[in-house]
Amino acid sequence: MPEDFPADSVGLVRPQTMAFDTPLELACNRALGPYELVYETYGQLNATASNAILICHALSGHHHAAGFHDFDDRKPGWWNHYIGPGKPIDTDKFFIVSLNNLGGCNGSTGPTSINPATDKPWGPDFPKMRVRDWVNSQVRLADRLGINCWAAVIGGSLGGMQAMRWALEYPNRIKHCVVIASAMKLSAQNIAFNETARQAILADPEYHNGRYQEHQSYPKSGLSVARMIGHITYLSGDGMGKKFGRELRSGSFEQGVDEPVEFQIESYLRYQGGIFADSFDANTYLLMTRALDYFDLAREYQDNPVEAFKRAQCQFLVVSFNSDWRFAPERSREIVDALMGANKAVSYAEIDSSFGHDAFLLPNERYQTVFNNYMANVFLESIASDLKVNG
Amino acid sequence: MPEDFPADSVGLVRPQTMAFDTPLELACNRALGPYELVYETYGQLNATASNAILICHALSGHHHAAGFHDFDDRKPGWWNHYIGPGKPIDTDKFFIVSLNNLGGCNGSTGPTSINPATDKPWGPDFPKMRVRDWVNSQVRLADRLGINCWAAVIGGSLGGMQAMRWALEYPNRIKHCVVIASAMKLSAQNIAFNETARQAILADPEYHNGRYQEHQSYPKSGLSVARMIGHITYLSGDGMGKKFGRELRSGSFEQGVDEPVEFQIESYLRYQGGIFADSFDANTYLLMTRALDYFDLAREYQDNPVEAFKRAQCQFLVVSFNSDWRFAPERSREIVDALMGANKAVSYAEIDSSFGHDAFLLPNERYQTVFNNYMANVFLESIASDLKVNG
Repeated sequence: MPEDFPADSVGLVRPQTMAFDTPLELACNRALGPYELVYETYGQLNATASNAILICHALSGHHHAAGFHDFDDRKPGWWNHYIGPGKPIDTDKFFIVSLNNLGGCNGSTGPTSINPATDKPWGPDFPKMRVRDWVNSQVRLADRLGINCWAAVIGGSLGGMQAMRWALEYPNRIKHCVVIASAMKLSAQNIAFNETARQAILADPEYHNGRYQEHQSYPKSGLSVARMIGHITYLSGDGMGKKFGRELRSGSFEQGVDEPVEFQIESYLRYQGGIFADSFDANTYLLMTRALDYFDLAREYQDNPVEAFKRAQCQFLVVSFNSDWRFAPERSREIVDALMGANKAVSYAEIDSSFGHDAFLLPNERYQTVFNNYMANVFLESIASDLKVNG
Repeated sequence: MPEDFPADSVGLVRPQTMAFDTPLELACNRALGPYELVYETYGQLNATASNAILICHALSGHHHAAGFHDFDDRKPGWWNHYIGPGKPIDTDKFFIVSLNNLGGCNGSTGPTSINPATDKPWGPDFPKMRVRDWVNSQVRLADRLGINCWAAVIGGSLGGMQAMRWALEYPNRIKHCVVIASAMKLSAQNIAFNETARQAILADPEYHNGRYQEHQSYPKSGLSVARMIGHITYLSGDGMGKKFGRELRSGSFEQGVDEPVEFQIESYLRYQGGIFADSFDANTYLLMTRALDYFDLAREYQDNPVEAFKRAQCQFLVVSFNSDWRFAPERSREIVDALMGANKAVSYAEIDSSFGHDAFLLPNERYQTVFNNYMANVFLESIASDLKVNG
């Protein structure tokens, strides 16, 4: 009964799987294939395929960005606030494609898949992925879906890096690039947090050098600590203070009382770490954080972002959040400055929010307005180009 | 040969041990004792004992704050930049006492000591320590050293919390309180980082519920990850960027090259984590981080810092560093505001530094000047009070 779903939801969605027989050449010089990509689509592709939008996911994201998988689903897809009828990424206007990236753990070929060469799970032998490899795999998906040019490629965080890579490497196949809470490359501090998270996983004896599946074990503790580290950096200090403060979950600070004290923030973080560790693959976590660390937009453009962006033919929307210290507004402003240096059309919005990096997933009036207005223009342009084609 | 030591060093120092037979009543309602405190002293106590200074250490600190333990020592004590002849804490003027706190792992009674009730190491059964317990133990040490009133109690970070607790609970025994890079209580984010570090230790199977000594094991991996987390938060993002950037230690990002890439920051952090884990006790780390979390200056003063500070009789110097995000200047300004609200004499300096929280340990011209000038006045006052006594 569709009545069960909110009116602004895309409702019931079903993941699809596309198999690719031809191996994909990777940046590391290895080839991966055959492989499969799991993806979802929302909305209808128009006759000229001019209204297609690609959603690129972040570190722990996946293909399920909007709607519900069944009627008992209590939580919709991870970007449901922004994808749906009447929402910025409007399913009444656009045909939206959202995939699980290669190396992921939500259905696309990744470390938990069987390596045909050994008949065992890939585990740590799964090839290292770079952002450009994902983009290349997304190009093949676009080809198979009959999408020659995306009306927009959109992503937050690691997803924004994919969107920018699209703009540089496939300039004729993307009209708009929407880069939210992202950066042209990680800072030393970003890398430091990622490495500490990786060490937490690698130090867990259940990790078994990545072959935990073969050992029927799982590095849950390590992955949980890794997620706790990440989680702190996705929130802002102020936001955390407002939500949790120094409130106690149990125990007492009374003098003369010898009982364990637990702060709310402690149990919250442990709970989040545990939930994540139950549903995510440790090798995928390592692979995704390394892809983040390794991304450097302008590396092969003489480390000159202006030169890099000169290749782009699309228009850009860049969005940052003032309390985001993992991908701070300064990082977005660097993108904007480079785009302006390259004489590209760019809109930039710095949004007030206390939710830190996570803000890109959450409702926020100004963010919604900015996003909505930009996407309305993306749609008008796609119609206009159809009129030109037809006329 | 003393010629071997720098002229502005206190030279060779020798730790001393003081045994206390009478148990110390703790905030948790347990009593600890007999116990020992390890401490060092620098400079000469004057006849009226008016020139004594107490140094309180931070999370991973200890009694060895200045000078060298032997002629082969390559590294002096942890605050050698600020303690010595002609330095702010001038050993030609003051008699300086620096101890290892109870629960520590550098010689004072702590989790690695033998619990007389069981004849086994205390391990996780060592009583929970609060900042006030340390202050009470320091009071006893002062009594035994014949110091009725400190010319100053000085501490950075967790040490600053002890200095403030002195000012509130023993107002007649402290003339000056120097609080550097500290806070009246930790934020939710601070607690979150501490809890994640603790989880890294607790998750290490070598931890054995804290009884690793009895198991002849040691949670080195867990403690190393814990330290990595801490270390990131002691540095500033900018400082880390300047020092390490995205420089590689090994490997290459060339396309078509399949070799592991290692950033400088990764190997640096792992190295630091490993060194720390080799020299520190995991149960002490848990105990110290909990003492940090639990400290709340004004808790028993109706959560009103102004009311709390009204008890103080001393003068205050408060220092913060602009790139310190673990104990941000805002936290120091809260201390200053409360002191002013309580009509206390307070000097405040916010120092420019790119070294984050660690800046309190490092050379910095303005910090040195401010500290020096303040301490020069502390000394003049102590002389003046002696003249009054003698006159």
